[in-house]
Amino acid sequence: MRVVDVIAKKRDGCTLSREEIDFFVNGVTRGTLPDYQASALLMAIVLRGMTIEETSWLTDSMVNSGDRVDLSDIPGVKVGKHSTGGVGDKISIVLAPLAAACGVIMPKMSGRGLGHTGGTLDKLESIPGYRVDLRVDEFKAVLRDVGTSIIGQTASLAPADKKLYALRDVTATIGSIPLISASVMSKKLAEGSDVVVLDVKCGDGAFMKDEADAKALATAMVAIGTRAGVRTEALITDMDTPLGRAVGNAIEVVECIETLKGRGPDDVMAVVRRFASRVLVLAGREPNEAAALCRVENALASGKALETFGRMIERQGGTAPRRATAT
Amino acid sequence: MRVVDVIAKKRDGCTLSREEIDFFVNGVTRGTLPDYQASALLMAIVLRGMTIEETSWLTDSMVNSGDRVDLSDIPGVKVGKHSTGGVGDKISIVLAPLAAACGVIMPKMSGRGLGHTGGTLDKLESIPGYRVDLRVDEFKAVLRDVGTSIIGQTASLAPADKKLYALRDVTATIGSIPLISASVMSKKLAEGSDVVVLDVKCGDGAFMKDEADAKALATAMVAIGTRAGVRTEALITDMDTPLGRAVGNAIEVVECIETLKGRGPDDVMAVVRRFASRVLVLAGREPNEAAALCRVENALASGKALETFGRMIERQGGTAPRRATAT
Repeated sequence: MRVVDVIAKKRDGCTLSREEIDFFVNGVTRGTLPDYQASALLMAIVLRGMTIEETSWLTDSMVNSGDRVDLSDIPGVKVGKHSTGGVGDKISIVLAPLAAACGVIMPKMSGRGLGHTGGTLDKLESIPGYRVDLRVDEFKAVLRDVGTSIIGQTASLAPADKKLYALRDVTATIGSIPLISASVMSKKLAEGSDVVVLDVKCGDGAFMKDEADAKALATAMVAIGTRAGVRTEALITDMDTPLGRAVGNAIEVVECIETLKGRGPDDVMAVVRRFASRVLVLAGREPNEAAALCRVENALASGKALETFGRMIERQGGTAPRRATAT
Repeated sequence: MRVVDVIAKKRDGCTLSREEIDFFVNGVTRGTLPDYQASALLMAIVLRGMTIEETSWLTDSMVNSGDRVDLSDIPGVKVGKHSTGGVGDKISIVLAPLAAACGVIMPKMSGRGLGHTGGTLDKLESIPGYRVDLRVDEFKAVLRDVGTSIIGQTASLAPADKKLYALRDVTATIGSIPLISASVMSKKLAEGSDVVVLDVKCGDGAFMKDEADAKALATAMVAIGTRAGVRTEALITDMDTPLGRAVGNAIEVVECIETLKGRGPDDVMAVVRRFASRVLVLAGREPNEAAALCRVENALASGKALETFGRMIERQGGTAPRRATAT
């Protein structure tokens, strides 16, 4: 197989085979494929697109380029979550301990800020001492004991995606639904969860400006997850205005704490409630969203959600927030 | 200016400015632009196209990346010729000495075989001793004394095109009318001729398989030459079957000698007559093609065309063919 023939095939708008996609991804992973050939193929993919089948193969190939986290020895349904990113988007930091407080196992490997959007890791690192670089065994220990752990993606997780992303960033090949969805889903599938919940942000402050694009991205990611045997759902949420009142790493963590006490800004509370109740249903903790919402409200009101957040922080080297703050 | 913004602009189907194209070509020439960005832009050009204006700017920029041969101190109209290449295409080897025998100055810098098509240089090198690597001053001396000289393109001629061509070859970005026409015309314009005649081959044995593509390529190249102030004409000629009976370096030179004696294969004779008479008119040697054809026939019949070929070969280190061969 010659990579120039694979590039020509995509240039001409044809569908690539699984073998051709594997050949490309393996070449990228091993460093045997020159960057100039990879970027030409990426641009052809941006302009010619990929079928859902091709996108799934690309995702599988990127998952197989590295390690897959094995969470099978942790009891319970593991739910992964990803947001496509927005301004003031702090939902994961609230959702993970809240869901854990309701009995759901929520492993979360997060990323840094991207473009104009903030990153979960950057925000959590504003907590003095908080370590985002746990080893997988440490991550699993926190997960087992606390029910959630938020860390950075390990280097061995989908390394092909890391290399391709770096190349896409400098070749104007970021904005492509097949490439974005394969990138997101390769990381989520490699994280080893049983269920994946996606927050596709849509609006002026999001990467997807209009609903048609957001819907197409959501559809592609759900299809990839489903084909890989992982129950996957996507919710499209508004990003026309920043989420909450705080935008900035430390002050967003403060807002998360307020939200975990049940008194966050209305928009943040609404998105958190929507995701948390859906996560409880998907994890089989409650039969329907009404019942799930009751449990969620209880975890917030009882202080159990905040306490779970505190335990996660302490297990990862930081100091837990005080239960009661001056009001 | 950031190259990633230039790539994004072309990816989105916009027209690049002259400054953006210069920035790209200068980066390629100086080696400051990474190959992976150049190849992403090339693929975007292949799939989004370029206007004639953009293609002209690209050509100018590639001409300016190197030296331009100054033929102004050689009296008379200088006519350059290029063929897009085919099987058995030996027209240049006959046309150059034939036109020179009719009083036209025909400087010719040729290329090697490309893909399935033969190269003029490869064919001429089958003549023992023939040097294709003359310096520019030697080239001009032969041109002045004989009226024609066929050599290889010097390294300083459109170096940006050489780099881009090497990259296009391995990234499936050869087949693009703007890129092909800018590549051909940058070399022809850098050669310093006053008039350029183009042979656009069309058919099964050519790079352009159908007439629409051949016509589009011819139109683009003529527009580029005209915008650069060089009188440019293109003839589309058939390449559904090999030209002549000989395909192979040495035997094609033998067929050229037969043609210069006026007894080449009918198809070769026809194309030679068509181009030679047009060249004589464009160079102002004859007022019309009928008169030009008379002069061409005379140069063939009198042996002057063959003798001119012999003088060029001898001046370039080879042994001239004997005037009369056993028949």
